[in-house]
Amino acid sequence: MTNKKHDTDYFQDHMPGNICFGCGRDNHDGLKISSYWDGDEAICQWKSEDKYQGWKGIMNGGILATIIDCHSMCTAMASAYKAESRTLDSEPIYRYATGTLKVKYIKPTPNDVLVTLRASIVEIKGRKVLVHCKVFCEDVLTAEADVVAIQVYNSAIQSEGIFSSE
Amino acid sequence: MTNKKHDTDYFQDHMPGNICFGCGRDNHDGLKISSYWDGDEAICQWKSEDKYQGWKGIMNGGILATIIDCHSMCTAMASAYKAESRTLDSEPIYRYATGTLKVKYIKPTPNDVLVTLRASIVEIKGRKVLVHCKVFCEDVLTAEADVVAIQVYNSAIQSEGIFSSE
Repeated sequence: MTNKKHDTDYFQDHMPGNICFGCGRDNHDGLKISSYWDGDEAICQWKSEDKYQGWKGIMNGGILATIIDCHSMCTAMASAYKAESRTLDSEPIYRYATGTLKVKYIKPTPNDVLVTLRASIVEIKGRKVLVHCKVFCEDVLTAEADVVAIQVYNSAIQSEGIFSSE
Repeated sequence: MTNKKHDTDYFQDHMPGNICFGCGRDNHDGLKISSYWDGDEAICQWKSEDKYQGWKGIMNGGILATIIDCHSMCTAMASAYKAESRTLDSEPIYRYATGTLKVKYIKPTPNDVLVTLRASIVEIKGRKVLVHCKVFCEDVLTAEADVVAIQVYNSAIQSEGIFSSE
């Protein structure tokens, strides 16, 4: 099962071989988030499972960090393709990994209802992309995050494996 | 299976009814981390599973954030009991939730070897505890984090449900 709410163009559908626990289509035990553009914001709607509780009825903070992190990385990727006016299926292939992740937990996030993540690009500085991500649950802001994404793979220069945040 | 490496006194063994995905003994699908004191540092050693990869052979950043987060919350709790010179089985019961979580990913964390988390208390300010946590993999520092823990439950005053970080 994938966590899809819209029949639209999801970033993760264009990442073949992605085994990531948070966003990989090829991880059958993963969270399988789906992200798409809504204007300049990237949206992810996701529904949790009982095993991902932190407290009774409340989502585990690490799982919330996981979906924020993966949605932000995929948004950084999609924004780079968008900046070059090309589709996610085109080459060169870019992939991003997390440099830093800062999450502020504002209110408990319920575990049994759909959460909506809204990510926007704050700045692009070379290989770094700064992403801001807000988490809403039934229109209530429950968390927000600043995430630094680093381009660690560019198929044009085969730079796979660069994970430094410097 | 619990991720125990030492026959010692684990914080999580004194948290009955804990269903948390990261640290709950009563979550059979969870990560089941175990934390213990080594002097002034709290240690957690944990071994991942294939499904928790982010990239091939590399731990998912959100899962790493999850074990950092839970280890830091449990360390904040244990430090509060320690400050009152009492055991984790004694009353009043204190529980902590995350205010903010900031993780810096320094190097990729391998997914197939034991990771060691070392957490220390930076400061205690009323209900807030500031925790610093380092992640080592075969003696290599792969990530470090600053975590703000908030006391959200004190059985002496029944303040369950206070999740504000302010």
